[in-house]
Amino acid sequence: MPFVSIRITREGNTVEQKAQVIREVTDTLQRVLGKPPHLTHIVIEEVDTDNWGYAGQTTTEFRRQSAENKA
Amino acid sequence: MPFVSIRITREGNTVEQKAQVIREVTDTLQRVLGKPPHLTHIVIEEVDTDNWGYAGQTTTEFRRQSAENKA
Amino acid sequence: MPFVSIRITREGNTVEQKAQVIREVTDTLQRVLGKPPHLTHIVIEEVDTDNWGYAGQTTTEFRRQSAENKA
Amino acid sequence: MPFVSIRITREGNTVEQKAQVIREVTDTLQRVLGKPPHLTHIVIEEVDTDNWGYAGQTTTEFRRQSAENKA
Amino acid sequence: MPFVSIRITREGNTVEQKAQVIREVTDTLQRVLGKPPHLTHIVIEEVDTDNWGYAGQTTTEFRRQSAENKA
Amino acid sequence: MPFVSIRITREGNTVEQKAQVIREVTDTLQRVLGKPPHLTHIVIEEVDTDNWGYAGQTTTEFRRQSAENKA
Repeated sequence: MPFVSIRITREGNTVEQKAQVIREVTDTLQRVLGKPPHLTHIVIEEVDTDNWGYAGQTTTEFRRQSAENKA
Repeated sequence: MPFVSIRITREGNTVEQKAQVIREVTDTLQRVLGKPPHLTHIVIEEVDTDNWGYAGQTTTEFRRQSAENKA
Repeated sequence: MPFVSIRITREGNTVEQKAQVIREVTDTLQRVLGKPPHLTHIVIEEVDTDNWGYAGQTTTEFRRQSAENKA
Repeated sequence: MPFVSIRITREGNTVEQKAQVIREVTDTLQRVLGKPPHLTHIVIEEVDTDNWGYAGQTTTEFRRQSAENKA
Repeated sequence: MPFVSIRITREGNTVEQKAQVIREVTDTLQRVLGKPPHLTHIVIEEVDTDNWGYAGQTTTEFRRQSAENKA
Repeated sequence: MPFVSIRITREGNTVEQKAQVIREVTDTLQRVLGKPPHLTHIVIEEVDTDNWGYAGQTTTEFRRQSAENKA
């Protein structure tokens, strides 16, 4: 009876990508742990970059600094 | 001190329905476990059907197939 | 496709009480929102009172003060 | 390796306020528990007041009653 | 910056199985969504069967009935 | 009405440290966002290092390799 919550930043993830993540994680849980797919629920929770903090700053700020460092 | 998170798909749940779920779950926790309502918080998290995976596919796809099977 | 997480303090909740909470919440989601029970998963997460903070202190401390105030 | 989820109602929290919460909580975890910031992720999950239940009613209703009581 | 929570029942999952789930899910998120492993955290939360409700009953009860039906 | 979940590895966090985290985070939410302490609940969820994956491996393995690299 798995329930999986996947939190990622909302940065252009497509429907196809999300469907593939769901397919692969369901398959992993079946193959490795024997969990039947009809008992496996997976929720992808997309979070605005202003609302995701990493290393003490928002991801919005983190992305901006990473872009500047590359420039 | 209960905290309840209820994840459901975002498919037309009305304000009235959500208020009733909050009322009933708060009542269950008070009646069965003795939890006082002013310490009970309940969050309803509505998830797009593209972001909820069930049985290895998105709920969008699952709903589409269910509709076809009925047709 | 609901998934419900119920966090409560670990303070002597019995198997029977937990089973009744599961039964009633599943029933509420079916009756109010039309969610089928075979798609409804509910997890009760019991938390040590040292690990639950309320009003800026642990529940262990909160319980101790409430007991003193009654004495 | 901390992961922190902060659920609050969506009621006009600014980008600056959210950045400050992220900064301070990351600092607390580093200072008190020795957790390095580059392993600390914090997600702020803003919830509509219709979807947050407190004391058996929605926060929308709770806010309305509080305003009436003050009037 | 993904954070993944995987809730499963506590029913004899080995360290090796859990390590493989972590390896595969991290790989899926990197391959499909481009997420770097050093930003990917995965938590496996094992839940007692008395605390996991499915179809209105505890998993303890559900397992017992499934075993009887096979006998 | 904040609810905060703090997931950390179970590696000798003391009751005093956890009480201080609860105190400081409650204070941050009051000072920055105006949230009253009697509506703020914080749960610290301690996770075994075998169950926390980082960079594709368990934290148990990650700690072992870090210790070897220092030796």
